[in-house]
Formats: sequence, C-alpha cells, structure tokens
Amino acid sequence: MAGSTYGKIFQISTWGESHGPALGVVVDGCPAGLPLSADDIQTYLNRRRPGQSKLTTKRQEADEVELLSGLFEDRTTGAPISMMIRNTSQRSSDYGEIANCYRPGHADYTFDAKYGFRDYRGGGRSSGRETVGRVAGGAIAAKLLQEFGIHMTTYTLSIGPIKIDRSKFNPDAILTTPTGMPDTEASAMAEAWLADCMKNYDSAGGVIECVIDGVPAGLGDPVFEKLDANLSKAVMSIGAVKAVEIGDGTEVTVRQGSRNNDPFRMKDGQVIKTSNHAGGILGGISDGSPIILRAHIKPTPSIFSPQQTVNRQGEDIDLSIKGRHDPVIVPRAVVVVETMAALTIADALLLNAAARLDHLKKIYGR
Amino acid sequence: MAGSTYGKIFQISTWGESHGPALGVVVDGCPAGLPLSADDIQTYLNRRRPGQSKLTTKRQEADEVELLSGLFEDRTTGAPISMMIRNTSQRSSDYGEIANCYRPGHADYTFDAKYGFRDYRGGGRSSGRETVGRVAGGAIAAKLLQEFGIHMTTYTLSIGPIKIDRSKFNPDAILTTPTGMPDTEASAMAEAWLADCMKNYDSAGGVIECVIDGVPAGLGDPVFEKLDANLSKAVMSIGAVKAVEIGDGTEVTVRQGSRNNDPFRMKDGQVIKTSNHAGGILGGISDGSPIILRAHIKPTPSIFSPQQTVNRQGEDIDLSIKGRHDPVIVPRAVVVVETMAALTIADALLLNAAARLDHLKKIYGR
Amino acid sequence: MAGSTYGKIFQISTWGESHGPALGVVVDGCPAGLPLSADDIQTYLNRRRPGQSKLTTKRQEADEVELLSGLFEDRTTGAPISMMIRNTSQRSSDYGEIANCYRPGHADYTFDAKYGFRDYRGGGRSSGRETVGRVAGGAIAAKLLQEFGIHMTTYTLSIGPIKIDRSKFNPDAILTTPTGMPDTEASAMAEAWLADCMKNYDSAGGVIECVIDGVPAGLGDPVFEKLDANLSKAVMSIGAVKAVEIGDGTEVTVRQGSRNNDPFRMKDGQVIKTSNHAGGILGGISDGSPIILRAHIKPTPSIFSPQQTVNRQGEDIDLSIKGRHDPVIVPRAVVVVETMAALTIADALLLNAAARLDHLKKIYGR
Amino acid sequence: MAGSTYGKIFQISTWGESHGPALGVVVDGCPAGLPLSADDIQTYLNRRRPGQSKLTTKRQEADEVELLSGLFEDRTTGAPISMMIRNTSQRSSDYGEIANCYRPGHADYTFDAKYGFRDYRGGGRSSGRETVGRVAGGAIAAKLLQEFGIHMTTYTLSIGPIKIDRSKFNPDAILTTPTGMPDTEASAMAEAWLADCMKNYDSAGGVIECVIDGVPAGLGDPVFEKLDANLSKAVMSIGAVKAVEIGDGTEVTVRQGSRNNDPFRMKDGQVIKTSNHAGGILGGISDGSPIILRAHIKPTPSIFSPQQTVNRQGEDIDLSIKGRHDPVIVPRAVVVVETMAALTIADALLLNAAARLDHLKKIYGR
Repeated sequence: MAGSTYGKIFQISTWGESHGPALGVVVDGCPAGLPLSADDIQTYLNRRRPGQSKLTTKRQEADEVELLSGLFEDRTTGAPISMMIRNTSQRSSDYGEIANCYRPGHADYTFDAKYGFRDYRGGGRSSGRETVGRVAGGAIAAKLLQEFGIHMTTYTLSIGPIKIDRSKFNPDAILTTPTGMPDTEASAMAEAWLADCMKNYDSAGGVIECVIDGVPAGLGDPVFEKLDANLSKAVMSIGAVKAVEIGDGTEVTVRQGSRNNDPFRMKDGQVIKTSNHAGGILGGISDGSPIILRAHIKPTPSIFSPQQTVNRQGEDIDLSIKGRHDPVIVPRAVVVVETMAALTIADALLLNAAARLDHLKKIYGR
Repeated sequence: MAGSTYGKIFQISTWGESHGPALGVVVDGCPAGLPLSADDIQTYLNRRRPGQSKLTTKRQEADEVELLSGLFEDRTTGAPISMMIRNTSQRSSDYGEIANCYRPGHADYTFDAKYGFRDYRGGGRSSGRETVGRVAGGAIAAKLLQEFGIHMTTYTLSIGPIKIDRSKFNPDAILTTPTGMPDTEASAMAEAWLADCMKNYDSAGGVIECVIDGVPAGLGDPVFEKLDANLSKAVMSIGAVKAVEIGDGTEVTVRQGSRNNDPFRMKDGQVIKTSNHAGGILGGISDGSPIILRAHIKPTPSIFSPQQTVNRQGEDIDLSIKGRHDPVIVPRAVVVVETMAALTIADALLLNAAARLDHLKKIYGR
Repeated sequence: MAGSTYGKIFQISTWGESHGPALGVVVDGCPAGLPLSADDIQTYLNRRRPGQSKLTTKRQEADEVELLSGLFEDRTTGAPISMMIRNTSQRSSDYGEIANCYRPGHADYTFDAKYGFRDYRGGGRSSGRETVGRVAGGAIAAKLLQEFGIHMTTYTLSIGPIKIDRSKFNPDAILTTPTGMPDTEASAMAEAWLADCMKNYDSAGGVIECVIDGVPAGLGDPVFEKLDANLSKAVMSIGAVKAVEIGDGTEVTVRQGSRNNDPFRMKDGQVIKTSNHAGGILGGISDGSPIILRAHIKPTPSIFSPQQTVNRQGEDIDLSIKGRHDPVIVPRAVVVVETMAALTIADALLLNAAARLDHLKKIYGR
Repeated sequence: MAGSTYGKIFQISTWGESHGPALGVVVDGCPAGLPLSADDIQTYLNRRRPGQSKLTTKRQEADEVELLSGLFEDRTTGAPISMMIRNTSQRSSDYGEIANCYRPGHADYTFDAKYGFRDYRGGGRSSGRETVGRVAGGAIAAKLLQEFGIHMTTYTLSIGPIKIDRSKFNPDAILTTPTGMPDTEASAMAEAWLADCMKNYDSAGGVIECVIDGVPAGLGDPVFEKLDANLSKAVMSIGAVKAVEIGDGTEVTVRQGSRNNDPFRMKDGQVIKTSNHAGGILGGISDGSPIILRAHIKPTPSIFSPQQTVNRQGEDIDLSIKGRHDPVIVPRAVVVVETMAALTIADALLLNAAARLDHLKKIYGR
C-alpha cells in the first residue's frame, strides 16, 4: 500500500535504492508449474542495463540477477520468487553536492516535503535504477504470457523531433539500434540529433509504443479495473512518463464517430474488427485485436547546464549537475514499458479465470 | 476486486445498470465529522444529468439522490455512506434490436466474450449511466477536499476541432455554456459544429482539462502508487477516454530538458516553482503547484448512420442504431473527470497521514 | 479498507445502521452465470430474522430483500449485485436514555473514542442488525458453493452450561428448535435455563459449530492467507465472538503428536484421512475432509439489571437498560457464522483458480 | 494476494524456503523517521533461533539479518525495508525419504493437491522456518509501537498438561526459561514432562498468551476489520495454531452477562474499566485496557514413532520420520505470536490516523 507493490494476483513488491547494497523484487502469485530460469530474467535485465552505448550513462552495472526462492527443479512452485540485483558501481561522491539542494525536475523536493528528509544518494528510491525490480518481475510475467500465445513488441517511436517511418518498420532493429527504434535510418538521425543535444549540455525525451499480440478477448474488468485503466497506471507509474495513449489516443478527439468506430466482421468463424482504432480494448475489456499503447517520456531532468533552484536552508542558488546521466532515457525505458504492460496483462489473465461459472467448473471438474 | 470498487482508504463501490430499478454507490472510509447534506451531492449529480440541452440525450432523469446511511446530525460518522439514484426513464423497447448484435465501439462484444452473455438493455453495466455512482461518491470527496483548501476547476478544452482560446478563459461560463467550455465564443462555435455533425447522423469527441488548486506538497507514494499514476487510472477508467496527460503531457517529448525543468525559487519563505510544466507532480508526489491533467474522449460510438457489424449467430449485418444518445459526451463527462480526480486526491490525502512518524505523533499526542 | 468490505475476489460491502431507513450489501466478483433468485437470499435472511420465538428480541422486522442490480434473466451477470433491506420497526425513543452514556460490553465508548461522536440510535453501525448484510451476501456465496458440491451444516453446540449430546444429533432439528440445537432434548433444557436467566434480568452465551462438506483439497494460500486464518477472521469479525477453534481446537494443546496426527490411507483410489482432528485443513490448505470450526459467543451485553458505567460528562452513574434485546444471540448468530464461512470458502475457491498453470490452460483452451 | 503479504498500510511480504539459499521479508509502509538498527531486529530473531536448548531442533542457524534497503543515517526513509537471512545449515539428505510420501499433520499432501507438485526439501515454504521473515518484519512494528508507549509481553502459558501458576508470574523468566514460561517451577515441570515425551518418540503442544499494554482507545475498524478479527487472522496464520481466544475467550460462553460485562468508571479524569473480561477490545475497537489473546498450538507433527500414510504412487505405507525436529514448538513460537500481534496493532495505528477529520486537520495544519 505504501507504493512498492503492484498487481492483485500476480503481484510484485520491489525494493532498493540507487546507492544501497542491492535492489530486488518479490513476485508473489505466479502460477505453479511455469518453467523458469535465471536466463529468462537476465535477457530482460540486459535490455535496460546501462553502459551499452554512448546514449546511456557510463555507470557500469552487471545487473546480474540472483534467484533466491520460489523455484524447484526449474519450475515455479507457487511460492514467492525473490530476486536480487547487487549494486556494484555506486559512487556516492558524485552526489555530495546535491544533498542539500533540490534538482529541478527531480523528486528531491517532494520527498523532503513528504517524509521530512531523504536519502539523497543518487536519488535513493526515486532513481530510475528502481526499475530494475520491475523488469525482473515483469520478465516472469512475460514468460507466463508466452504460454498463452501472448507476445509483446515495444520500441522507440520518436526521440525529440525525430520519428520513425512506419513504412520502414524492422522489428529486428529494435534490439540492435542504440535508440531502440525499429527503423535504422530514423535511429541514425536521432543519434545525430542527440549528439548535438549533449554538446549543448541538454537532454531529450520521446515516445515509446507497445503492441501486444495474442491477448484473448475478455481480459479486464468493467468500471474501475478496466484493462486500459490499469495499463495507464502501470505505464504512468514509470518515472518521466507524462502521457499515456491507448489505440489512436489523442487523435480520436478530432475524429467523428463514423470514422472512429471499428466495424465487426466474421472471418474464418471468428468475430474480428476490420480496423483497430480502439487499440484492442472495448469497454475496458480486451477484444482480441492487438493492444496498442504509447508512453510519452519527458527529457532527462539531469542536465549539465546551470539551473535555478533553492537549497534546504531556503536560499536561491544556481546548480550545475555533475555525474553520469543518460541524455535520453527512452531507449532504456522501452523494456520497462514492456514489462509493466506484461505484469498488467498477466494479472488480468489470472483474475479473469474466476469471472465465469463455466470456467470454474472446468477447473474443478464439474 | 471485480472492478466496481475504487480507492484504498477513501473507497467507493458502485452498482447498477442503465435499465435496472436503480444505481448507487457505497462510500467507505470517509473520515468522521465531515458536514454533509444531500444537497452537497445533488449539486454534482445535476451537472451530469441528461436532458439539459440539445447536446445531450433526451432521456429525462431526475437523478435524485437518496442518502441511506452513514450520517448522523448532518455529519459523517465514519460508517459507510450508501446512496441510491432511481432509474425513472428506462425504455427497454429502444434496445430490443441490439440484443442480438454487437454495436461497433461499444462493449457488447467484449462483455459477451468475457461473461458468456450480457444484460443488453441500454448497455447494462457498461452504459455511461454507470458514472452516476462515481459522481455521487466523488461529490463527498470534493466536499472533504474543500476542508483542506483544495479546489477543482474542470472544463471542456475542445470539441472536435474547436478549441477554447485560453486568453478568453471565464470560469463562470463552465456551468452556463452547454458545452462546458469556459469561453462563450468557442462554445458557440462548437455548438454550430455539433449541429452539423448531428445532421450527418454522426458524433464527436473532445478534450477535458482539470486543474486542482491547493494540494499540499507530499501527496502520492513513490514507485507504483504515484499520484499521477493513480490519476491516470482514475481518468482512463471513464468509458470513452483514450488518452491522459499530466502537466504539459505529450508536448514534453519534443522539448529539451533545459526548457522542461521547472526552476525552484523561494517566495515569502516558501519553496515555489517559477513554471509548472510538470503539472504539480514530481516523482509521483504533489509539489504544491496546481495539478493539471487532461482527458481525451472519443466520439460517441452510438451513431445513427448504418454500420457494419455481426450478430450473435455469427452473421455479417448492417446496423442502424436508434434510441436517445448524446452526440458528444464531453460536456456531461466534465463532472465525471472532476469527481474521479477528487476521489484520487482524497485517498492520497488520507494515506499520506500515516507516512511520517512526526505526523502520527501529532495525532496520538506524543 | 475502512472495514465494511470483505473478500478478495468474491467481495461484499455492507452498509446501514440499526435505525436508519435501510441496510444493504453490494456483492462484487460473483462469477457470471449463477442462477439466482430473491428466494435464495430470503431463505437465509429468514433464519436470522428477529421475533421468531421468545428467545429473540420482540422487534418485528420483515427483513425482505430487494434485489437492485447484477441479475439478468435470473442469472448473475458478473456485475455487482446490490441488495437492500428496509428497516420497518425502529423505535428511537427506546434509545434516548443511552445517548449520553456508555453501555458496558457495547461499543458505545470505543466508537466515541475513535470517531469523536457516534450514532447512538440502537447502536448504529455496531448493532447486531449490521449482520443482515453479511447474511444476504453470504447466501449468494452459499448458492455458488452448492454448484461445486459444497454444503454447510451449522448449529448451536451449547447455550450457557447446556451442551448437545452428539449421539442424538438430528440435523432436521436445527431449523425447528428455537435454540438452533440439533438435539431436541438439549434444546428444551436450554430453553428452561434461559427462562430462568431472563427472570433474573440476565443473559447467556454459547457455542456454534459449522461443518463444511465437499470442499475440494487445495483451497487456501500458504503463509498469511491460510484458509483457517481467513475463517478465523471471518468468524471473529461477528460481534460477540470471543474465540474461534478449527478442528479439535483448544483440545490439541494437551494431546501428544502421535494422537493428534491424522493418518493418511488410500480408499477407492483416493487419498483420505482416517481421522479428522485437523478439521479439514493442513498447512492452511483444505485437505478434502470436512472443515470444522467453532465460534464462542459471549452473553448478550444488554441486560436489564443495573450496571455501573459513566456518562459523556465523565460522571459515574448506574444504568438500567430498557428496550428489546435477545437474552442470547446464539440461535440467530448460527446463520451468520454459516454465511461468513461460505463467503470465505467461496473466495478461496475463486482465488485458487489461478494457482496453477495447468488450471489456467484448461480455461484458455491451451 | 497469493498469501505471502500481510497488512494494509504497514505491510510485509515474506519469501524463502527451508532449504533455499536464504529467506527474507520486505517491509513497506513503515513511517519515515523511525530510528532503526540491525540490532533491533536481531534481538527478535535470536528469540526464535533454533539450537538454544535441548527442547529445540539441533539445526544450528546463525539467523543473522542483512538490512538491504530503506534506511538512511539509521532512520527509516519511508522506502521499503528489505531484510535477508541466509540459510547456513540445510541438510537436504535428511529429507530424501519424505520426497515421495505425505507426512501426517504436515502440508505435504495439500501442497501437492493445490500446486500439482512441491518443493519437498524440509517442507519448503510450509516449514516453520518461514516465520523468520515474520519475526524480522514484526520487530520493526514492535519498535514503532514503542514510540507510542505500546509494549508487549508474550509467554508460554502451558505445555501439554503443565500450566503456569499466575501467582508466581515473573516476567524476567520468560527469556531465561527454555520453555518461555514466566514461572520457573512450572517450566522445570514442563521440561521433565517433555523429556518423557521425547523418550517415547512423541511431541507436545501448548498455549501462548500475549498481553499488549498501552494501546490507545480507538484502534480497529468496525464490521470486518475489527481489531480482534485481524489479530485472530494474524495468529491463526502461524502454522500449528488451532484456536485463538481474545480476553476471557472460551470461558465467556458459560457465563452470564452480568458477570461478563466490564463496568466503566472514572479514574483521574479518564474512563477506565474495572475489569477486563473483554481483553481490551469492544465492538472490534481497542478500549484502552490491555489487549489479551491466546494461541493454542498443536503438538509438533514430526514424530519419530512410525505412522500410517500413503506415497505419491497411491500406496499405503508406514513412515518413520528422521531428521531434526523440536519436540514442542511453543517456546520458539512465543516471539512469532508477539511479532504477528505487533504487525496487526501497528497497521491499525496507521489506518486510524485517517479516521477523523480533526485528526487530519492536525496533520495538515488546518
């Protein structure tokens, strides 16, 4: 309830600070019998690991996961799965200067306002490093979803003013471009643009898109636990996200109903939609089409040019941030968006098991 | 958990269908001692009541609230507050034709997919009429927030292509224009545009903005229970919302950090921000500036022009919807967005009471 | 969270005071497709209705249930089921005298201490009348359990010093004796003993036993959500319950392990236990044997003999309670214990649906 | 939700198996600003550590706690507190023989029934070793309660047939007798009785009592979240507990109301009760008197004499358990009962902060 737990049945509780000895996550509620290895998790952690290109912080972290519980003979047992990732590259000296002042765009001031003081080393709990727990937990959710034919594709749609050209969409590029863009040309342009941005001691934002294929119709609950409502919360809970869209998102407001409704048609004995403006969700419940969402991410608040701020003594000061910071967090946030979506869909999949009497009778053999 | 309950401490559970005898809400967790009358709630219900202009459905509902529990001598007692609103204008005959088919853009298909069958009368639980419970519950949250100096201003920002001119912002107009716009000129234009839209048997969407003044710094919890994450869920859970923005929202993705960070400065002994791109929330915690959010609403899916769809027998058919429908739901949704935001802020206010040892010592006299 | 909601998936939220216009309950999370009628609920409500014998308060209440939502063509739809029971026999005048003082054994003092004031009419929310919502909600849980072959037998085991003779157990007597005892002789003795008790302006307590047959092995979750832990909470939450036992309960503490362990044996290809000291639960999970629990209920605190207490002005006073009170609440509490157990088992049944990958694959056809 | 999380605001999530690399707990929701050191936790862990007397298993575990997050400059920050205890004395070979059969009185069978298979090494998640996480988390709750003048005294009341003599109550003896009895004579008798019991390859149960002083009136919520209901769940969730009593517990059922009601009187300007049959709770809310509860614990199911059971192949077999087992778990369970009660009271203390408008105004300075 204090904020570090997510999910109703498939539930994760994350812990750890940027400069503590370790970070981790406890996954409770994963169904028993899922084949799982440390590799399944490491693959996802590697996608958010820093130090992989010049676009990310030079902080080097192995981010190696230790699996501490919940497995027996390479399958989940139904017991909580505890995972730990040790911090190996903390340099607290970098942060001494900001112990006493509030970095603009960061949570320094609000943590002080809420708790009366804060762990200022590297942002403590408000650091982006917190997401390592989400990714480790979400990797298990993604593994579970694969058992049901549900697959996710997540990528950078834009960085600053540079957008991908959808006609050049190449899924293989997502994991090979330093930007996470599925379009190598746009990626090269974005890299050039970011190089300029860094020269000016400035930073950039961008947009991430996530497409979820294979979700069966029927997931999500009406009214407050709509699938899109939970996806929005999941994605907006990632630091730096300032807007979330489902399907055609903001565009629908200038469109008329006749153009926005997706017609239904029969195809091979199945109900399908002939368009997908809705992004795979109707009335908060999945409709069998791909689920599509976008996260809008602000520019990294840590910039090296001087900024106006105040210190804890209540004095106006000028601050120049030092240290190691990503000029844009979008590329590393791609896997965070993907795993938060995976956690949300997995939870809806489990909750839906109890929605119908006939479903329950199948389980209990009646 | 099945979806009709919202909030952790200040909690509402809504119930009721469009064509049942009544709808209602149970509010549990409202602090004891809040002065409250039926009028406090009726004022909010009247803002979403249909039949008030030619822009809204002709269905006439008094939407009179009955207060059934939780009050004693005009104050809340800490016990659950039950409220009921009777349906008085159901005409099930209107819906006979759609019992057997799936209206595009509606939840007919997904309810069938999830539950195996559905209450097809007026959309049942997926009808916009469901929001009457949210508004009644949220009216109490808003009353509570007033005790702490928190006030909300919510209005229509655009309908279709027509936007307000912020330089002509007139808060008094919000409750007097049929569009909910705080700009009478834009409102007149929107009315004309909607008249055209209706002539073509079509419908429109739009954008709602909500500004919350007076929120103390410190509300919201880090990581998963960020205040913006919960506001996003609250707003996205309203049927027809397809995108949510906080502060400058989608615009921040093309902006550089030096332009997006809000500088801190001292003013009258207080920490203030000299701009508010962040929309009053940093790191998921309120920063004392006004909280700003926007909800993007799709065009009403019920349109009178013919549409392609299928029926429950799995046949392709053409459907022309009859009945009474708002050509645009934005004006009536304004108060729904406002009350969902009120519920979210109220819950965060109560949860935050237990966040600090020194706060608790004040309460327990230590 | 404020206390009036019970259950994780099969969830009830009750509301209403002893002397308000009505009481009620919202059931959310009942699976879609369950056949249900008002009669199913009324049968249970009639078992707790007052005024049925000289052992119960003379307050006459029809306790007729109104079903307000969640049903379509006599089946549950998955939407919340709202039920209301109107109060018809409030006599507030009876309670004027106790508005200003604290009845011993009642919650008057603690409500004042918690909330600063209280609705003193008939105990308000702390009245035993509150249980009408539990019974209405639990009746639906019991109906659901029947679909899975789960049946409950609940009865009075003792009143004051009078215990049933288990060798004379007659299940038909449970609903015909005024005591709820399944032994007509013991019941007659208990009636005589209670008559004496009432002559002395005094009151009595007793023990209720509940046996749940047909529960499949595997319900309940390890560690904190053990089935016995949840049953204990469910039963202890009923006003006046002061102890809860599972299986052989308090007796096990003086027994040695060799006498307390239940041996396993094969029978007709099934694993069975040849004794059931454990009461059907091992390690917090149902083992397929009957679940057995007992609730120990204190004597009714409202007695007509004078008692020492204080008033709100902080003065010592003597109080003689008037009004209409059951000399023993045990007979009417039988159905409350039964329905609370039904709610707990139903919730565990639904939660368990998501515990195994192979179960989920059955539902999703994989 | 899957069972390893306890509490609503002050929340713990435990993880780990008897024979895995480690066990642990994440505490979320502890208020910021609480002074805390590893010693505060180690003191409690030492009370449950095995190998301290001939009454406990010879398994030697240091049970040293590692504090991994949530502290800064020796105070809690409001962030989750992660604690880990490494397993150092696993001998899996002891358990090879039971991999294939169901030990009577254990959860082997029910885990298989629920999950389809189980981690059989030392009972896996159903081992008593699981309580190490409860104790570490509860130690923080106890530290928090001390800040509010709330203190707990927990001790063994009986082992098998040997009860303490309350007239010889010596609180210092609790931590010095191997039984946890506050009466050295009774403890010596219990030791002798247990020696006999062990000679016969048998085991024993007993009763633990917990007294909580200094709880302010007003904690607990009406109806389902009564303080006694939550205490019952907390205590019944400890493996081997088969009954829970509050105050005079089972005794009240044979007592008349005039003898069971606690009179109120004024003393030094305070409302007090002149007796405490209720055990400090009225209507589910603390009344300012000491809270008293008792846990009834079954004899250790692991006994060395042969028992009837079945194996996974569905054959009747005889089983003689080997390995290292406590002949009675009562002495080591004392601190588990204490910490579960501490967690429950702490959570109620935090929740109650939001129960009244005037309380909230104190916090927010209105």
